[in-house]
Amino acid sequence: MNQSRIDRVAANMAREGLSQILVTAPASVFYLTGTWVSPGERMLALLVKGDGSAVLYANRLFALSESVDFPLVEFDDTEDPIAMLASAVSAGKLGIDKFWPSQFTIRLMEARPDVHPVLGSRPVDEARMLKDAEELALMREASRKNDETLRRTIEGLREGMTEREVAAMYNAIGKELGASGPSFDTLICFGPNCAEPHHSSDDTVLKRGDSVICDVGLTWNRYCSDMTRTVFFGEPTDEQRRVYEIVERANAAGRAAVRPGVPMKEFDRAARKVIEDAGYGKYFIHRTGHGIGLETHEPPDCSATNEVIARPGMVFSIEPGIYLPGRFGVRVEDLVAVTEDGCETLNALTKEMRVLG
Amino acid sequence: MNQSRIDRVAANMAREGLSQILVTAPASVFYLTGTWVSPGERMLALLVKGDGSAVLYANRLFALSESVDFPLVEFDDTEDPIAMLASAVSAGKLGIDKFWPSQFTIRLMEARPDVHPVLGSRPVDEARMLKDAEELALMREASRKNDETLRRTIEGLREGMTEREVAAMYNAIGKELGASGPSFDTLICFGPNCAEPHHSSDDTVLKRGDSVICDVGLTWNRYCSDMTRTVFFGEPTDEQRRVYEIVERANAAGRAAVRPGVPMKEFDRAARKVIEDAGYGKYFIHRTGHGIGLETHEPPDCSATNEVIARPGMVFSIEPGIYLPGRFGVRVEDLVAVTEDGCETLNALTKEMRVLG
Repeated sequence: MNQSRIDRVAANMAREGLSQILVTAPASVFYLTGTWVSPGERMLALLVKGDGSAVLYANRLFALSESVDFPLVEFDDTEDPIAMLASAVSAGKLGIDKFWPSQFTIRLMEARPDVHPVLGSRPVDEARMLKDAEELALMREASRKNDETLRRTIEGLREGMTEREVAAMYNAIGKELGASGPSFDTLICFGPNCAEPHHSSDDTVLKRGDSVICDVGLTWNRYCSDMTRTVFFGEPTDEQRRVYEIVERANAAGRAAVRPGVPMKEFDRAARKVIEDAGYGKYFIHRTGHGIGLETHEPPDCSATNEVIARPGMVFSIEPGIYLPGRFGVRVEDLVAVTEDGCETLNALTKEMRVLG
Repeated sequence: MNQSRIDRVAANMAREGLSQILVTAPASVFYLTGTWVSPGERMLALLVKGDGSAVLYANRLFALSESVDFPLVEFDDTEDPIAMLASAVSAGKLGIDKFWPSQFTIRLMEARPDVHPVLGSRPVDEARMLKDAEELALMREASRKNDETLRRTIEGLREGMTEREVAAMYNAIGKELGASGPSFDTLICFGPNCAEPHHSSDDTVLKRGDSVICDVGLTWNRYCSDMTRTVFFGEPTDEQRRVYEIVERANAAGRAAVRPGVPMKEFDRAARKVIEDAGYGKYFIHRTGHGIGLETHEPPDCSATNEVIARPGMVFSIEPGIYLPGRFGVRVEDLVAVTEDGCETLNALTKEMRVLG
């Protein structure tokens, strides 16, 4: 159990008027206990109370009792862990982790009508948002490995390769460099597939004239990286050059705006403005970025509606893009960490326009 | 939209007194609409009403509007889909998918205090539980590929290989056979790691005297397979032989008990009794099996507490095991499909005790 992190969470709870929360996201449980459990569909919950006490409820299958030294309640598949939680929580407000499956919340409400579930992720999310020095060191190394892996992957691009083959090449190099694995499904897109921000790498073959989007990340000691580079295979058209230049400028403008004391939405605004001013606003169809750490997507969002104020230690992506359906797309993404007076960009791989092949 | 499946769901809803449900599991949305969306942390919901109408709410990012011909409400990251749902649902009971993140349920409750969320997965789960002929054909083929892939993997076992290498070999053969990929993280365990049912394959090296658990599955046209075989590398001890024989008998007893009209818990009972009678009851620390189909774990559970009555078309695993901490473990798993008068075992790979090396 990491008592200092739990104490930070308890202080955050007090500010929100919460005296009890259920922490259930595996990454949050790991952050507070040092123990990672992937519960599948089984119930997992750390009940944190305002006095800084915490008890983990976990299935006996995960065999935690021999390795942990903190309060633990185990159950097996024949027992009802919701009944156990129902007898452990107090009447009144109970903070619930945002991703906890609704079945648990609904059954707990049925068992304890005097308990009032409210969103309860913020106390932990706010603690996790502010990365400490140790976390930042791990995230720098994850991004350094990501830079090097993608640099070598881009050097290995050859006409006729499929998206899946390039993704496999990236994954293999990342493993060679000692990463635990990709932080998310390695996404390589060629040509018109680049215009689909949620394409999955498939057997599309690389050919001249394609834009190539590489949206990739590696995990290092449980911390994630995430970066996107777009390169061109064969001489780009004037429009491809223009779109690339706009997106690269939007990425730079977004990062240049990042400093503590400013709402996250301003960074989205700064990046989006470059693209809107260039007349491509309606082709930038997603938020500018997302927080990252133990998970690839975690607070704070860098979106048009996020009022959260940036503070030193926050780490998130700046990843503007322009997507021209059926034709091509460009996205350029870096991770940034908010510092005392601006931000540190965690990725060092060049963003100059690159023409290969 | 698959209207006949939606009509079955609407009939199931009527039986439960539900006039509206939110279907949110990607596999369930696919089952009813033919469209698979992996929403990540974004909201995805199919609002199904008792009259058989259905509207899908999905982020514009997934670009469904051009490919689907059913009612679709799209939104982007700057819009609030919960407000849209809040204006579309009626007062009173609203069935909620069991895995929908609690944040959506809680926010919908806040927006519509006159709406009463209840567990609402059953109408769809009950439809999905009864596989039709087309689904059974896909599941047979998925298991056939799984049999063949594991047969070749076991032939390739060599002293000094790591668990990860064997898992990679399995994955590569499965790909060669045309499977979409593993249905879940391929699990290969050697020796004492076999005693940990939730071990992840690591760099442990295969040596003589090890039990080897291979818990593996392949996906074929979105349908999953799942099988476990335990083999011995080098001559097993008398106790290893005895434990293997008990587990294999428990697997056979579980499968022999499967027939329509009988509660699922009886099949757990039949398998468990063999292990208990042999004096190893406390080392069989999980349920006997789980349903499978579009997902690796879906209803019906084969557990000591499941009162669901088996019906033709249900597919689930029978996977008893004995786990001796620090020493070795044995698990033997097959998929079975309930037929009109018993069950069909989908796996054909031998369960005779095998000694390799």
